[in-house]
Amino acid sequence: MSTQSPTIAIVGAGLVGSGWALVFARAGHAVRVFDPSADIRARILPWARESAAELAAAGLIGDAEAVVARIAVFDTLADAVAGAGYIQESVFETVETKTAVCLAIDAAMDPLAIVGSSSSGIPASRFTEGCVNRSRFLIAHPVNPPHLVPVVELVPAPWTDAAVAGEARALMAAVGQVPVSLSREIDGFILNRLQGALLNEAWALYDDGFATLADIDATVSCGLGLRWSFMGPFETIDLNAPGGIADYARRLGGLYYGMAQSRTPRAWPAETIRRADDERRAALPADELAARRAWRDRVLVRLAAFRKAGESAS
Amino acid sequence: MSTQSPTIAIVGAGLVGSGWALVFARAGHAVRVFDPSADIRARILPWARESAAELAAAGLIGDAEAVVARIAVFDTLADAVAGAGYIQESVFETVETKTAVCLAIDAAMDPLAIVGSSSSGIPASRFTEGCVNRSRFLIAHPVNPPHLVPVVELVPAPWTDAAVAGEARALMAAVGQVPVSLSREIDGFILNRLQGALLNEAWALYDDGFATLADIDATVSCGLGLRWSFMGPFETIDLNAPGGIADYARRLGGLYYGMAQSRTPRAWPAETIRRADDERRAALPADELAARRAWRDRVLVRLAAFRKAGESAS
Repeated sequence: MSTQSPTIAIVGAGLVGSGWALVFARAGHAVRVFDPSADIRARILPWARESAAELAAAGLIGDAEAVVARIAVFDTLADAVAGAGYIQESVFETVETKTAVCLAIDAAMDPLAIVGSSSSGIPASRFTEGCVNRSRFLIAHPVNPPHLVPVVELVPAPWTDAAVAGEARALMAAVGQVPVSLSREIDGFILNRLQGALLNEAWALYDDGFATLADIDATVSCGLGLRWSFMGPFETIDLNAPGGIADYARRLGGLYYGMAQSRTPRAWPAETIRRADDERRAALPADELAARRAWRDRVLVRLAAFRKAGESAS
Repeated sequence: MSTQSPTIAIVGAGLVGSGWALVFARAGHAVRVFDPSADIRARILPWARESAAELAAAGLIGDAEAVVARIAVFDTLADAVAGAGYIQESVFETVETKTAVCLAIDAAMDPLAIVGSSSSGIPASRFTEGCVNRSRFLIAHPVNPPHLVPVVELVPAPWTDAAVAGEARALMAAVGQVPVSLSREIDGFILNRLQGALLNEAWALYDDGFATLADIDATVSCGLGLRWSFMGPFETIDLNAPGGIADYARRLGGLYYGMAQSRTPRAWPAETIRRADDERRAALPADELAARRAWRDRVLVRLAAFRKAGESAS
């Protein structure tokens, strides 16, 4: 990237791409947004205005209008990408779509720009091989919505320039995200592998009738998740034995290894999924899912404000 | 239990037992505390005063002195237990110690009282078999500290009366904890099985050099853990697909099953533990562990206040 505060291009402006636009704009970058759908393009700025106002109301940003004013919507990919120092791709997650869009970005981009893909599971090697500038592409996987959940997984393809991964990490840290750097590709990256390990165990316990779905959820939302919202799993165990993490591993490593050995991988069974769906729909009818998602995002806004306040208090 | 607001006995008053005393006292119960160590007995009330003052300062309780006034320290187990409707055992976690203490409780207890054990891993069938009143014993496993993290796992032994499990659940809910009811025993119960599944995957990723320990921690503390601090893993995925949990399972169940199939259980390797310890001690020297634990507990107090405020706002 050629400047200290590069222009950012956003390609694909659904929920993820729109959140990314806000991330970069609130950090002071000029942001150029493209989406192939005219309907989506028309929604970008109204959504950004509403979301920026919510962030301002929570004390997370100062001047909401100044943030939104940095976002410009473009009608063509080439116009949005030309001259951008960093390009975030957030299009529909299939190999075909990502391959086509990356080739279009490749043709229009500054050869020194960096392209991060929001792919949540497909590694970059599966859709960037044919790009002339493929050494400038990597995965930059956020959690939705990226302007409220700061983690970003950076995953290089085998041909990604090592300097590109370092520059992307520096940019993400500079805009207030929390970059996680993987050394190489792996299915699910780190975040979804950790989530998957916990989910697989949760499904097996539910399948075997040890507890209701609501009670299994409560062990996390009223137990494990409290510490994990401000400390990772390693720091958690580091503080949970007198002598730190090595002491904890000596005391309990065998117990956890035993649990893994006694657990055969099992698919999420169709009948158990039906039972889980029944329990969830009794707790939250299908027509209230959207309202609950909006509630979740309001809690995430409050939680972001709580975390920001804690940084100065701790 | 014979009354609407039973007298509570606490047997074993280390960090866990002292936290339990505060849980019941703040809910209005008379609490009788016993510990075999005179040193520990002398620390109970000063600790309770300090902790209650912190809770009051955070707006979590009203009259701190009234809460502490409900706690009485006893010099013998029999005096503490006699007449109590609910007894919480929190002694050192070995089968030998728990067996001896449970027999002593058994000899002194009201036959209609309920005894909950704070055991974090040993099931009740391993240390209550010889008790005359064994049908009144079960596991009531908290997270430390119980007055700041509300979840409690209730795990019956094969001989626990089903009504006892139900009464214990009602009591825990009434005092503001969040009970999780297991149908039967399993190693690690639910909470530590979920933690273990995630930890085993985290150790394997670290062992294979995919990322630093700090970056793996960040995928949770700045990613997964934010939602998990107010929603369990099942509700999280229920909201992460347009059609809810069944839709999510159809889309992604195969991916997560594949991850499980490709992962062979492995012990936490000694050399990897050493490397993890080096990285943690560089981030947090051993002589700062205690201060960091105090910081963690201050964050948990603030988080409890944040959650309490959210209940009215949501």
